[in-house]
Amino acid sequence: MSIAVDGANAPQLPEDLVTALRALLGERFTTAHSVREHHGKGEAYHTPALPDGVAFANSTEEVSAIVKACAAHDTPVIPYGTGTALEGHTLAVRGGVTLNVSGMDQVIRVSPEDMDCTVQAGVTRNQLNEYLRDTGLFFPVDPGADASLGGMSATRASGTTTVRYGAMRENVLALTVVLADGRVIQTARRARKSSAGYDLTRLFVGSEGTLGVITEVTLRLFGIPEATRAAVCSFPDLEAAVNTVIAVVQCGIPIARCELLDKTGMKMICDYGKLDDYTIGDTLFMEFHGSEAGVAEQAEMVQAIAADYGAGDFKWASTLEERNKLWAARHNGLYAIMATAKPGQHMMNTDVCVPVSRLAECIMASKEDLEQSGLVSPFVGHAGDGNFHMSIIANYDDEEESRLAHEFHDRLVRRAQAMEGTCTGEHGVGSGKIDYLEEELGGAIDVMRAVKGALDPKNIMNPGKLLRL
Amino acid sequence: MSIAVDGANAPQLPEDLVTALRALLGERFTTAHSVREHHGKGEAYHTPALPDGVAFANSTEEVSAIVKACAAHDTPVIPYGTGTALEGHTLAVRGGVTLNVSGMDQVIRVSPEDMDCTVQAGVTRNQLNEYLRDTGLFFPVDPGADASLGGMSATRASGTTTVRYGAMRENVLALTVVLADGRVIQTARRARKSSAGYDLTRLFVGSEGTLGVITEVTLRLFGIPEATRAAVCSFPDLEAAVNTVIAVVQCGIPIARCELLDKTGMKMICDYGKLDDYTIGDTLFMEFHGSEAGVAEQAEMVQAIAADYGAGDFKWASTLEERNKLWAARHNGLYAIMATAKPGQHMMNTDVCVPVSRLAECIMASKEDLEQSGLVSPFVGHAGDGNFHMSIIANYDDEEESRLAHEFHDRLVRRAQAMEGTCTGEHGVGSGKIDYLEEELGGAIDVMRAVKGALDPKNIMNPGKLLRL
Repeated sequence: MSIAVDGANAPQLPEDLVTALRALLGERFTTAHSVREHHGKGEAYHTPALPDGVAFANSTEEVSAIVKACAAHDTPVIPYGTGTALEGHTLAVRGGVTLNVSGMDQVIRVSPEDMDCTVQAGVTRNQLNEYLRDTGLFFPVDPGADASLGGMSATRASGTTTVRYGAMRENVLALTVVLADGRVIQTARRARKSSAGYDLTRLFVGSEGTLGVITEVTLRLFGIPEATRAAVCSFPDLEAAVNTVIAVVQCGIPIARCELLDKTGMKMICDYGKLDDYTIGDTLFMEFHGSEAGVAEQAEMVQAIAADYGAGDFKWASTLEERNKLWAARHNGLYAIMATAKPGQHMMNTDVCVPVSRLAECIMASKEDLEQSGLVSPFVGHAGDGNFHMSIIANYDDEEESRLAHEFHDRLVRRAQAMEGTCTGEHGVGSGKIDYLEEELGGAIDVMRAVKGALDPKNIMNPGKLLRL
Repeated sequence: MSIAVDGANAPQLPEDLVTALRALLGERFTTAHSVREHHGKGEAYHTPALPDGVAFANSTEEVSAIVKACAAHDTPVIPYGTGTALEGHTLAVRGGVTLNVSGMDQVIRVSPEDMDCTVQAGVTRNQLNEYLRDTGLFFPVDPGADASLGGMSATRASGTTTVRYGAMRENVLALTVVLADGRVIQTARRARKSSAGYDLTRLFVGSEGTLGVITEVTLRLFGIPEATRAAVCSFPDLEAAVNTVIAVVQCGIPIARCELLDKTGMKMICDYGKLDDYTIGDTLFMEFHGSEAGVAEQAEMVQAIAADYGAGDFKWASTLEERNKLWAARHNGLYAIMATAKPGQHMMNTDVCVPVSRLAECIMASKEDLEQSGLVSPFVGHAGDGNFHMSIIANYDDEEESRLAHEFHDRLVRRAQAMEGTCTGEHGVGSGKIDYLEEELGGAIDVMRAVKGALDPKNIMNPGKLLRL
């Protein structure tokens, strides 16, 4: 594991701070090793880095008090939701206090007439959708993991439905944020659009906990469509599948999900899920939302396009149960991939995003590179957005294997950037992509540094992430 | 005219700066009174405030050189596109150099496959759509005026199509910006989505020239729909029209435009446009985009909802010519209203935005207030977004009349804010709404001030706008 992180053996917290946090939170502040360890590792290949203590907050007021106490001692604060981030966002690379908001799990308000709601940051997307079940509404952003909505805001998450409904960027209306000195602000009103000053909402969406702690989120909701149909379809090769997606998007077909899985990935999820009714090939998973007539029309158009690219038959899922089974297969992708790891192997899960017109070229070049390097990874893509993932399985303790994987990853990111793409479409920068971000945006990084310096002058908010200061 | 502005009699520019700008731009820098006067007045009721000079830039490099020269003398820079802003954004309230980018009118790149383009900041939306005509694509954001795309980005413009296609917030992919010290940055790559660091694109979208000068804009484009139909429909009263809109939005019907015009406004546009084939009543202007079948389905659903609220017949416009005539009538609203002004009268054009569920209540209360105050204004609304405009016609040189109008405006804004709305849905803060913004967002204003201080420490970028420093 060659990503260097500091603070793995973190210093102790100031005694006064421990006393203050104990007085504030009682048992909900702990320095127990097992709890620190649980909070100090990510889901990915990054080296664990333990916090010195973990504070569990139940309210915005508590978050404010915790941040104030930490600020008084220049102690880092690492916001933590479900710990499902993939670029080492929650690692305590400089020690400090991990601030777990998962107890902030209340849905504060739902307004069906306005199709919006406000939730505490620890509410997960599945929890929200469960809560909304009787309202006819749903929250569409779906990154796969059942992440917290605070965390999804903080990483500007997107996922399988973004091609139709947008990402967190488009679907967060307002935030309550605790700043680095403990002040609490509301970034915007609840109106659906606004020209009222700088767009602080979107400044904090994607700020990865480096500018403050998100404690409440106001979200757009959508009506559950009258009709939903999902389909899986196999293609003669990856390029044909990608080109189908590009054509669908260019035709303006409002497809709700359009997911690419290459043959390697398809085999992994079929093995993992014991699914024997899918063709093992380069595959698209699709979903159509709309009126009965609209869904039929969309499906017909997409089938025609797919046929032009030599697609096999569409395997349809129309009942909720069938659809759940289909999407569980796709969403279990990460676990399916992890299940193929041999002892000692880990997974480097990464993402890049390119203009859609370059997607086929980027994927095909990366596939060739992968084969030449002798590494193993599936290709999994939110293809309609030009965004795809690779999960490079290797023994990262083996120097040679780790070097090969990192060099491949390097080439992958630089290939995407050379095609006017970005080093991360949805996973964020975290600890893993700081240098790529610098290369990608050049002078704009100085603007980010200036903003960070203005809002967190002591650099206590999730330090060591997103920017090198 | 009681909005106080300073600098109407501005001091001279430093001689060195004049020399530098003349050397750089030749005839494209001027201190001629007529040119300064043209650039020193808005379209609205705010007191004119002339710049000390006007610089016409043709490239990002020139903008950078101009800003650098001004920065060296702590001289204000006021970015200027088409001068169609409505809250005094382009007034030189502290003197300085107005930087006119209308000569930056090149479409740099169109990628039909990616459905995006990059334009120089001075390209107007009509110019872009004309340019795109043969590609099958269009840029949807439509604030009415043929504004520059740089200016539309800077004010976070929206308009009639936002209910379907989003505002500038959603449709700007990346910006080239000249910072307050002349550095040039690119805020993002061209990928359709990104989690690569702070969302600088959206920080500059809506920053009203106070953080830097936008010189290039990368925009999302959309396919021209297979079918388009527009309709006008009259309602028994304003509330019925508003409630129809709310129901349409709540049913998730993807209506492309849904504009409200009250009886007063309808009479004004019919008189102005010599239109005798519309009913003078509280009216909705609608447009439907989609496939032939989709448009028919949407239209049928909306007609059913409208009928429930007692609507009259739909007057359809299906040919391009008919549609252009219909939307010209709506878009000429501002000029139609201005045309009713008697000598000495001006127009206070304002906008507020509330959650859609409060729209009927907000409009009806404002209508009653208007009647009691004896003032005259139409109601014009992007009703699907909860956003509406009033244009209060009065003699603003008459103290009593001006006081009445300003007091009404005050109550209007506070009424919207009390309903969880905002003081501006799309016109921006400019000089006119600084105090309302403070009341609306409280502590968040300090965050805006910190960002402004970090990016423009000398406060030379459009000073006196958006924030009180």
